[in-house]
Amino acid sequence: MGVTDSVPHHRIAALQDRLAAFAAARDWERFHTPKNLAAALTVEAGELLEIFQWLTPEQSMTVMEDPESAARVEDEIADVLAYLLQLCTVLGVDPQAALAAKIDRNEERFPVR
Amino acid sequence: MGVTDSVPHHRIAALQDRLAAFAAARDWERFHTPKNLAAALTVEAGELLEIFQWLTPEQSMTVMEDPESAARVEDEIADVLAYLLQLCTVLGVDPQAALAAKIDRNEERFPVR
Amino acid sequence: MGVTDSVPHHRIAALQDRLAAFAAARDWERFHTPKNLAAALTVEAGELLEIFQWLTPEQSMTVMEDPESAARVEDEIADVLAYLLQLCTVLGVDPQAALAAKIDRNEERFPVR
Amino acid sequence: MGVTDSVPHHRIAALQDRLAAFAAARDWERFHTPKNLAAALTVEAGELLEIFQWLTPEQSMTVMEDPESAARVEDEIADVLAYLLQLCTVLGVDPQAALAAKIDRNEERFPVR
Repeated sequence: MGVTDSVPHHRIAALQDRLAAFAAARDWERFHTPKNLAAALTVEAGELLEIFQWLTPEQSMTVMEDPESAARVEDEIADVLAYLLQLCTVLGVDPQAALAAKIDRNEERFPVR
Repeated sequence: MGVTDSVPHHRIAALQDRLAAFAAARDWERFHTPKNLAAALTVEAGELLEIFQWLTPEQSMTVMEDPESAARVEDEIADVLAYLLQLCTVLGVDPQAALAAKIDRNEERFPVR
Repeated sequence: MGVTDSVPHHRIAALQDRLAAFAAARDWERFHTPKNLAAALTVEAGELLEIFQWLTPEQSMTVMEDPESAARVEDEIADVLAYLLQLCTVLGVDPQAALAAKIDRNEERFPVR
Repeated sequence: MGVTDSVPHHRIAALQDRLAAFAAARDWERFHTPKNLAAALTVEAGELLEIFQWLTPEQSMTVMEDPESAARVEDEIADVLAYLLQLCTVLGVDPQAALAAKIDRNEERFPVR
């Protein structure tokens, strides 16, 4: 994954730009209120969970071995990330900085014994 | 956001490494089956949606003006991204490549008129 | 709705019995752990929300005027109720008593001014 | 559960009436668009799932043995049912008739071999 990080086209900010251009070209920006994007994010997270809902813990670990489920998983992960990034764009939140700050807080909150 | 992309500490792969080390140090890896992480992702997406559930579309657009809601939004966005990245780690999925591929497919599926 | 309440076939306990018989006849009971049913309930709630995600508040109020959306709404409501009732059955929870108790608590918690 | 069905106070239609009166007395009806209620339902389903998210299938089956988790489960089930019923009220959907019709369809769709 370090590899794609170094490909500018795949970086988070570049993906946000592509998503914004995609929505603007289709006049979909008016649908992209923070509330609607948060709802769409939850809906897509549910679609990702659906793949796993009847699986045992063990079965869930081998889901990528079947090409069809693997493709479905990647597709739903992409949808979740897409709505998360679009939400960050409209709110002006930097997702990577938010997560780095949260890990800092969690390291204090849950000290290693 | 282009700025944080160039800070190695904030990049996606680095965040995934920090999250993996955090879980390993607390012996939490045994909880992190793909199924459990997909459930946790959905739960956190719901907590993010909760902030917006009774707001009008207009109110949802100004949620970052109040420092307390802004902090809550950033915290929930961090949680969603954390579980999404941990899920990608255990499944071996590259989230940025998955999203780039999905945008490519969507550009064909929804042509601009 | 008072009418269907008085039709035994439609009562909650009768619906729970039908759902239990349906699952038993197909040997699906082994999938119906409380955890899986809670996940399936969340997934179905997401599918119900999906119908409304891009609608304005006003548009969401007229969703039953279109026969196709009305059928979809009823279908997703049925799915949510089905998993909620199956969860109640496996946990031994009486959903109607639980809700009556909750309304009692809320009447104390949110007094009318 | 057949017992509570015969207590009028606990019947679905009576619970819907109590919920409607509760909202009206607090002037909360303006928040109860179908869209907002569908979002709130999903949020509450996520809170119910949260109780189970890190449990093994086996642990999830004994969740009612601990009085504290049992109370939490009943509370979240009540919340899910409350929003589902309020959604049904504003949309004019009979949840029990919708579920009975869905079971009928599923009996044809998934014949017992």
